[in-house]
Amino acid sequence: MVAVEGQGPELAKALLRVADGMAAQPGCLAYVVNAAPDEADAVWVTEIWADSASSEAALGRDIGEAGLADVLELLASPPEYIEVTPLGGPGLG
Amino acid sequence: MVAVEGQGPELAKALLRVADGMAAQPGCLAYVVNAAPDEADAVWVTEIWADSASSEAALGRDIGEAGLADVLELLASPPEYIEVTPLGGPGLG
Repeated sequence: MVAVEGQGPELAKALLRVADGMAAQPGCLAYVVNAAPDEADAVWVTEIWADSASSEAALGRDIGEAGLADVLELLASPPEYIEVTPLGGPGLG
Repeated sequence: MVAVEGQGPELAKALLRVADGMAAQPGCLAYVVNAAPDEADAVWVTEIWADSASSEAALGRDIGEAGLADVLELLASPPEYIEVTPLGGPGLG
């Protein structure tokens, strides 16, 4: 996702606060916040969920609670998603 | 990365074999092989490394050994990379 100009670091901070809350959500295997080395206002979040129901439950909860409202305020455009299905490999929780 | 037509499942299998070897490499925190739900010949690999030196060491080793040669043979085009820098969040090994 891309922040309004100059707000990439603030967006990353807001997402790290969201990540703290996600760590406790059932089925959240990863919620890693990443900077893009050559695009200062872009932030990537790499999420791994046990199943799509867990992901939807956690997202539904969190928009109402602390965290995601701050994120939405900082965005220059709606976030882009790349959804994939894990098949295996180390690091899958 | 995208396989030659019809070879997506074979590419995924080859990458899962690579993943088995990567699990033992120093600094490899994740090497998850993923299918793309709406693109049968595409495979995404989500890698997390402790540092770029670990990643380069493991890749250098593995082209010479079992695994990556099979992958390269199945590709329709050179793989695309998205490199990002993890800042924090659950799942970072």
